[in-house]
Amino acid sequence: MKIKKFIYHLLEPSEIDVPHERLFNLFLVALIILNVIAEILETVEGIKNQYYYFFVVFEIFSVAVFTIEYVLRIWTITNDKIYSKPFTGRIKYFFSFFALVDLFSILPFYLVLFLPFDLRFLRLFRLIRIVRVLKLGRYSESLKKFGRVFKNKKEDLFVSLLVVLFLVVLSSSIIYIVENEAQPDKYSNIPDCIYWSFITLTTVGYGDMYPITPLGKLFTIVIAILGLGMIALPTAIISTGFNEELTKHRKKFCPHCGKEL
Amino acid sequence: MKIKKFIYHLLEPSEIDVPHERLFNLFLVALIILNVIAEILETVEGIKNQYYYFFVVFEIFSVAVFTIEYVLRIWTITNDKIYSKPFTGRIKYFFSFFALVDLFSILPFYLVLFLPFDLRFLRLFRLIRIVRVLKLGRYSESLKKFGRVFKNKKEDLFVSLLVVLFLVVLSSSIIYIVENEAQPDKYSNIPDCIYWSFITLTTVGYGDMYPITPLGKLFTIVIAILGLGMIALPTAIISTGFNEELTKHRKKFCPHCGKEL
Amino acid sequence: MKIKKFIYHLLEPSEIDVPHERLFNLFLVALIILNVIAEILETVEGIKNQYYYFFVVFEIFSVAVFTIEYVLRIWTITNDKIYSKPFTGRIKYFFSFFALVDLFSILPFYLVLFLPFDLRFLRLFRLIRIVRVLKLGRYSESLKKFGRVFKNKKEDLFVSLLVVLFLVVLSSSIIYIVENEAQPDKYSNIPDCIYWSFITLTTVGYGDMYPITPLGKLFTIVIAILGLGMIALPTAIISTGFNEELTKHRKKFCPHCGKEL
Amino acid sequence: MKIKKFIYHLLEPSEIDVPHERLFNLFLVALIILNVIAEILETVEGIKNQYYYFFVVFEIFSVAVFTIEYVLRIWTITNDKIYSKPFTGRIKYFFSFFALVDLFSILPFYLVLFLPFDLRFLRLFRLIRIVRVLKLGRYSESLKKFGRVFKNKKEDLFVSLLVVLFLVVLSSSIIYIVENEAQPDKYSNIPDCIYWSFITLTTVGYGDMYPITPLGKLFTIVIAILGLGMIALPTAIISTGFNEELTKHRKKFCPHCGKEL
Repeated sequence: MKIKKFIYHLLEPSEIDVPHERLFNLFLVALIILNVIAEILETVEGIKNQYYYFFVVFEIFSVAVFTIEYVLRIWTITNDKIYSKPFTGRIKYFFSFFALVDLFSILPFYLVLFLPFDLRFLRLFRLIRIVRVLKLGRYSESLKKFGRVFKNKKEDLFVSLLVVLFLVVLSSSIIYIVENEAQPDKYSNIPDCIYWSFITLTTVGYGDMYPITPLGKLFTIVIAILGLGMIALPTAIISTGFNEELTKHRKKFCPHCGKEL
Repeated sequence: MKIKKFIYHLLEPSEIDVPHERLFNLFLVALIILNVIAEILETVEGIKNQYYYFFVVFEIFSVAVFTIEYVLRIWTITNDKIYSKPFTGRIKYFFSFFALVDLFSILPFYLVLFLPFDLRFLRLFRLIRIVRVLKLGRYSESLKKFGRVFKNKKEDLFVSLLVVLFLVVLSSSIIYIVENEAQPDKYSNIPDCIYWSFITLTTVGYGDMYPITPLGKLFTIVIAILGLGMIALPTAIISTGFNEELTKHRKKFCPHCGKEL
Repeated sequence: MKIKKFIYHLLEPSEIDVPHERLFNLFLVALIILNVIAEILETVEGIKNQYYYFFVVFEIFSVAVFTIEYVLRIWTITNDKIYSKPFTGRIKYFFSFFALVDLFSILPFYLVLFLPFDLRFLRLFRLIRIVRVLKLGRYSESLKKFGRVFKNKKEDLFVSLLVVLFLVVLSSSIIYIVENEAQPDKYSNIPDCIYWSFITLTTVGYGDMYPITPLGKLFTIVIAILGLGMIALPTAIISTGFNEELTKHRKKFCPHCGKEL
Repeated sequence: MKIKKFIYHLLEPSEIDVPHERLFNLFLVALIILNVIAEILETVEGIKNQYYYFFVVFEIFSVAVFTIEYVLRIWTITNDKIYSKPFTGRIKYFFSFFALVDLFSILPFYLVLFLPFDLRFLRLFRLIRIVRVLKLGRYSESLKKFGRVFKNKKEDLFVSLLVVLFLVVLSSSIIYIVENEAQPDKYSNIPDCIYWSFITLTTVGYGDMYPITPLGKLFTIVIAILGLGMIALPTAIISTGFNEELTKHRKKFCPHCGKEL
């Protein structure tokens, strides 16, 4: 069972830096990134036609590696304390987030061979594999801090989202009443006005819809100013969260008496 | 009077979680949200025509529920300490914010039956009912904090709004002088330039109006940079407000006697 | 000389709330605001033609009031400690910021009577009078705090402006090289590219200029991300400034030993 | 060797303000700024033709000054402790950032004389000389603080960039699937969608690409809201960094022994 443990640690690198584990994971991460890049470039007409065979070969190679990786993970996962039971542990792991991502990243390839479906959407799951990049450990401390900040502030962020939703529903209805008559093809119904409200409140402002009536312009000014608040609120909330994190983890000692502050 | 108290607590859920009160309020909140969604979807041509009868039935049902709810609230509100007096208490409640919102959310339906007016605008009041969603209690602590922060900082926020208004009036006049000759149809008068100033200062930038003269472009750069300040100022003010809130609830020690403050 | 002192205090309200001083200043502020509104509405073709005589009468009335106010200020200013000397004090006051604003807000009216010049630009000075609104005292504490924050952070803000200018010059040159060939009419020279860089960095994004070459798009992404930093930097600087202000002015006392913290 | 030391201090001004050193450096900075302005104005057709000879003379003069400056720097740099060794010290300095910038700012002029290449891109290096402006010492304290904040927070900023990249890759793929059919000429491939994602996430929103399908609009709303987070995250990180800097320099007292920390 030594090889099983060896493979397990290869796939799930421990906190301690072991060179060959690190190297293998860098290879996996590089393969994932190259897959994402290939996926992106394949949509460019010119590139796809020119390098067609290369893309096919690379896809087969990648799917082969990822399939072997997936099977090995299922096999060796019992080394993990959480999934230690041979059968129920593996079932539990099978339905874990990362295992499902891994499965869906290879599934479309096999499905496409046997089924006549258009699996374009399923292929998206391969892109989610890029999450694994963040598991590289080195940046996990920062990521964990981000996670803690968002978790601590999730109620505040959710309430500010509710406030925004309320503003959007209200402003969309008002702009619909104000602009619909002047631009019935653009502000044609409230769902379209909701789209416009969001694009204005977030200060994106594509310019595909804009008010032309004086009342509509006046009202747009009000929304744009409220939009500044929409930027200010989450920024303030997250700032406060970061400051809290900072204060918590900064243990200090008095240089005179040596006690913790 | 036991049933009166029962209904009162059903409509105005107390802090303590009582399952049937909670359930009933979730039903009311769900009905309000569904009403808002119906209101929104009704403006979409295709959906309105296809589900016309459904919308009519749903509206009659909702108005019936909201009317009964309104009457019951007026009846049972005397259980509230603030509105305890049978007559003056009820009059006082009648003119309270939420009672007026409730009234205006059912009024358009009845008015439209008897009056030939176009009550499109009045129907907006039904959307305001969505505020009730925020009364669900669970998120009220966050909302109250937001309220405190805005209240503490309202003078700062008002002054920054004054500063912005001053900048807008000035920049609108300058851009009017600079761009009016080159684009008389777009920068046709100062009110239009005020609209443009706001859209630029808030960094929305639709692109329906933009400078074409060198001087106008130079001046737009100045406004765009000031616009960054317009984002920075409220964000900084609100951030400071949140930090103040945070500091209030934090333990501190006196450097002289060492005791907790 | 009692009337002189009375008029002085009428024009320069003291910190203490005296009802008639307050009322008179509210009248002046209202007149200034109405003047600004008139100035704005006069540029709207329809309104100007319809209310032509009203605008003329209102202008004559306003200039009369502002002229009398100006003369009285020059007369009574010797009551101010800083300008107490009858001659040199008045000369000093004459060249003070607010006195010049007052002068320039009435000057265009008289100049236009005697001179054939187009004084459109000079009339702008009348708009600057709106600054006086901020002297109302009530909001001066907030304004002074803003002033202190900006003063304390002026070096940081200036350096971040320098950083921005450097980024703009560099990015404008790069986009000129990259996009000029593909869009010679839009990215025609570096000054135009500087305008585009600012509009992109400040995230305004009108859409009058946008890249069409792959390299130009890639580079625009880089600029847009740097633009987020441009929003983050001043916000962070001003936030820190507000927090400093807060910490400074929050004197605290220990509830146990009563000493200041 | 007195003159060598004199020239060294002229070129590398010490912390202490020496009038003639300061003056000479202001001259160099002014020349650099004028060079940058000339470089910018040269791209404007009209100006270039009208002042052609002036530009040529100014370029020859500038290159002459910068060449002499460069040679003198190489000669006198041994006065610097870090580069004190006559040969290896000079080699080390030759490959330092500022020395390379200086070299590349004069090189294009000489290369263009002897080589038939188009050196437009190389000329950009001359613009980088503007960095020297920041060496003026007066603002270096602020700049150093910025540097420290960015250095302290570089991991957080890098991780938030990773998060953004992940969001962009995912959102680009989704919008490609959603909008490609409706607008095959605009959302033609994922790289184009990546460009659109960045322009939307950073809230620039040119308006050259925008969704027209209901699903695309819905998804754009999600991206625009995430974009607010993209503004909030770096702002919060940098704010926290500035506050940390501030706290470091603030006096504190130990709650146990009462002494200053």
